[in-house]
Amino acid sequence: MSMTIPPLERVLDDGRLHIPIQLRWGDLDAFNHVNNTAMLKLLEEARVRAFWRPAPGETGPATAILDSGLSHGMLTLIARQEIEYLAPVPYQRHPLDIQMWFGKLGGSSIEVCYEVRTDPAAEQHSLYARATTVIVLVEAASGRPVRLTPEMREAWSPLLGEPLVYRRN
Amino acid sequence: MSMTIPPLERVLDDGRLHIPIQLRWGDLDAFNHVNNTAMLKLLEEARVRAFWRPAPGETGPATAILDSGLSHGMLTLIARQEIEYLAPVPYQRHPLDIQMWFGKLGGSSIEVCYEVRTDPAAEQHSLYARATTVIVLVEAASGRPVRLTPEMREAWSPLLGEPLVYRRN
Amino acid sequence: MSMTIPPLERVLDDGRLHIPIQLRWGDLDAFNHVNNTAMLKLLEEARVRAFWRPAPGETGPATAILDSGLSHGMLTLIARQEIEYLAPVPYQRHPLDIQMWFGKLGGSSIEVCYEVRTDPAAEQHSLYARATTVIVLVEAASGRPVRLTPEMREAWSPLLGEPLVYRRN
Amino acid sequence: MSMTIPPLERVLDDGRLHIPIQLRWGDLDAFNHVNNTAMLKLLEEARVRAFWRPAPGETGPATAILDSGLSHGMLTLIARQEIEYLAPVPYQRHPLDIQMWFGKLGGSSIEVCYEVRTDPAAEQHSLYARATTVIVLVEAASGRPVRLTPEMREAWSPLLGEPLVYRRN
Repeated sequence: MSMTIPPLERVLDDGRLHIPIQLRWGDLDAFNHVNNTAMLKLLEEARVRAFWRPAPGETGPATAILDSGLSHGMLTLIARQEIEYLAPVPYQRHPLDIQMWFGKLGGSSIEVCYEVRTDPAAEQHSLYARATTVIVLVEAASGRPVRLTPEMREAWSPLLGEPLVYRRN
Repeated sequence: MSMTIPPLERVLDDGRLHIPIQLRWGDLDAFNHVNNTAMLKLLEEARVRAFWRPAPGETGPATAILDSGLSHGMLTLIARQEIEYLAPVPYQRHPLDIQMWFGKLGGSSIEVCYEVRTDPAAEQHSLYARATTVIVLVEAASGRPVRLTPEMREAWSPLLGEPLVYRRN
Repeated sequence: MSMTIPPLERVLDDGRLHIPIQLRWGDLDAFNHVNNTAMLKLLEEARVRAFWRPAPGETGPATAILDSGLSHGMLTLIARQEIEYLAPVPYQRHPLDIQMWFGKLGGSSIEVCYEVRTDPAAEQHSLYARATTVIVLVEAASGRPVRLTPEMREAWSPLLGEPLVYRRN
Repeated sequence: MSMTIPPLERVLDDGRLHIPIQLRWGDLDAFNHVNNTAMLKLLEEARVRAFWRPAPGETGPATAILDSGLSHGMLTLIARQEIEYLAPVPYQRHPLDIQMWFGKLGGSSIEVCYEVRTDPAAEQHSLYARATTVIVLVEAASGRPVRLTPEMREAWSPLLGEPLVYRRN
């Protein structure tokens, strides 16, 4: 049944990984638009789908090679985040189009860049937000940084692009 | 692009409305499975997709005829909820299959019944939870109950079914 | 500094454990009152403060004797929840007064009963919700129920009271 | 009853507004520490307590002079956020000590700076995070920026301080 086919992550010609994430009405706050922290929740889910190895029977993009978690000995910690909100996001049934690329692959860190946009199938197109997250890979037990392996660099370097620049005042 | 087609709500031969809802890793709690309150968040999103009129350019099921919201003069309040958790829910990429039907259409209330299951396309099938929500339609200004209209009864009666019965002790 | 003294859980003459829980504006939804699932989040926090052993340097009520968590070998799972919403909850700075008692101590389960009320110091007093949660103690590794120990029964039986009865139709 | 006295916001000798915010166990994620987005939820609650006028019967700090909300004609929108996570935050019963000051009062915007720390009464002291939020005051109807009034500048300028500087690579 087509009902059961979830929208898929894919890399398009713009060199970005496009990840469709469903909004929830519960992401709205009392101002009746998506809450500023809910927006970061959407980016978190995009990261999980981009980086974490799919379970048996599931599919994921080529970047999804991490076994992160307390039971796997490695964690992906957030060191820094920056986000610029460009337009209020109303509730909508179409998934948002989270576009992701990497501004930098460091020794044990990754600079993840995002643009959050309306679904390409939506009637009106908007750029809602731009954001950057710096992830650090650490050993779960010691908390010490883990160096990116050649396998990781190979999987992730196709998504290398220009880091986002913010107007900071 | 098929990427942009969200999974659709549809009524299947079992007389239930099936609503695919994406999990988020953020729905997990420190016990590493979907939190008990996150499960109700999924049901909330299923209700929104089942009942609320789609925006221009969007599609929704035949039950989606409500204009609920502070600006529309009518609210859908939750009077009562009951939920039975049958199995811990791990993170998964496939959307969950929220099955919904109505146990009763009252004077100004609806008894919504749900089963939360793995996606039919998943490798292992599970029934995760069963739940009931009693919704009351109220006038936003006065808080007074609003009677179900003939249009509502016509739209919703195809989903009438047996109310869920719970083992309560 | 008095700033640093958090409001404390205490058993009052009504035989109930009173647990002050701060609301957050983020608990509101687009209808501008506390969301139905956020109410259960408040109950979850009340349970944690009621049952879990305080860390060194912290204090907790006499019921707080559990070492729950993946690393302690024992989990407290939610088997069932029921909640009746009696009045919409607006944002307020005073903590809500979550009143807790036990309807039953079973072989390996506890029936927790709650009333959610305005702070006794608030200008207007309201009963917002009544709820019941059935918790089961399980072994983290096997998922098998763990029997309540005599120590647990001794710590919790002072809070035994009448189970809540709900109008269900 | 002392139970009912919530911890209060107050300006200390360091020129910062200290706002005690209770953690919730639900703020933890599957990595068993406070989730990166939950940290921003704590900052949101700190802002609400710092800026919004208390309801009748409530008290608030001298900065709490805003009537924000859809029904008041003025919204406080988030234009930009930046946050640096310095140490994982475990669950704790003591409220966190959110320290707030203003890096800049612009024409219609405020740069809010924060440090998130353990409660001064806690056994171990930690600086968990540093963050900056740029808020813009807008007219709810038009979305147009609203200029800060002399009353606002007078209420907020006592908290003017050095803007946070981040190591950005």
